[in-house]
Amino acid sequence: MSPPAFDAAFRARLYELLQWRRDVRRFRREPLPDDAVERLIGLACLAPSVGLSQPWRFVLVDAPERRTAIARNFAECNAAALTAQAPDRAARYARLKLAGLDDAPVHLAVFADPETEQGGGLGRLTMPEMIPYSVVAAVHTLWLAARAEGIGMGWVSILDPVAVRRILDVPETWRLIGYFCLGYPEAADDMPELEREGWEARRAVDEFVVRR
Amino acid sequence: MSPPAFDAAFRARLYELLQWRRDVRRFRREPLPDDAVERLIGLACLAPSVGLSQPWRFVLVDAPERRTAIARNFAECNAAALTAQAPDRAARYARLKLAGLDDAPVHLAVFADPETEQGGGLGRLTMPEMIPYSVVAAVHTLWLAARAEGIGMGWVSILDPVAVRRILDVPETWRLIGYFCLGYPEAADDMPELEREGWEARRAVDEFVVRR
Repeated sequence: MSPPAFDAAFRARLYELLQWRRDVRRFRREPLPDDAVERLIGLACLAPSVGLSQPWRFVLVDAPERRTAIARNFAECNAAALTAQAPDRAARYARLKLAGLDDAPVHLAVFADPETEQGGGLGRLTMPEMIPYSVVAAVHTLWLAARAEGIGMGWVSILDPVAVRRILDVPETWRLIGYFCLGYPEAADDMPELEREGWEARRAVDEFVVRR
Repeated sequence: MSPPAFDAAFRARLYELLQWRRDVRRFRREPLPDDAVERLIGLACLAPSVGLSQPWRFVLVDAPERRTAIARNFAECNAAALTAQAPDRAARYARLKLAGLDDAPVHLAVFADPETEQGGGLGRLTMPEMIPYSVVAAVHTLWLAARAEGIGMGWVSILDPVAVRRILDVPETWRLIGYFCLGYPEAADDMPELEREGWEARRAVDEFVVRR
């Protein structure tokens, strides 16, 4: 197989994909095609991982009682987060919709397994956080691949990671990376919802660059 | 602007991009086009970030004495990592080329700023690690965008993060996410170098999936 040569037309579409990927919180209830999530997980496994350790663990959450427990945990954590907001931001915080747990047809929890022997420890002696970072790369791969077929994804981080691990009955050594909603989005947008709602604005790129 | 509709032809190319992205350690010395890295950083800033906090800080490392100090730190950490390998893997470890610091025309250190006020703390009360995770998403975005124009990237994690912060003279509160080499790769491949060298094999996707 000869290496693909990516052309300008492909890159233009790729940039559109990056611009129109969104953290989706408003889903249609319509189910995804049967094999969609498994296929997306397969693509996520092409992500880089430290030492080729592939430390990602994907937990498809179907049981209604587990989904309800997750939604309850989100509600509790979100109420606590509202209390922690500065008074001048609290009202705005309360208006935001921060998860699509109610309508999303697919719930996917993603964990890292820091104990995996795969990879032989390579690349993670001085930076053991390379294990969770590898899983984040897989999550982001899944996110982009989903968006490319019109499937939206939302990252829910307003959860107690230990409670989530218990609700899902996974090994104690696994570490929650994120809980994700997937489904067809109500709408597409090239602006993050938090920006549209006036919560925060994106800064100019050069504010993030330093030279040494 | 109406939302783009990504078609099957685009998706096929995207999957090729995921398959042919590599952690590159063998670079040609040829410089990159003048604006290439800044442009790639701009695309990276389209990545998701918790609360729209954009906690990524990109440090372009040009000073030869800093590059030399980084390479020295890598050599020290890699020697220690070799010692830590099990005896049956040490010889194989020693044969691996684990960084392209010598030839890569571009050195890029990427940090997270956990103290940023941008984002108003949203989404990171129970999971403060969302800040470094957001930066990893930006790194992976940059990686894919680079590969789409034939530029290779390699992630160096065999470094002492505190030493790197000092060598680069960045704020103490910043946290190293990774040190990256960028440049034109010597060769393209659809198989990770660690797999080709017999260090580790990728597992079947269903080994990573659990249902609850």
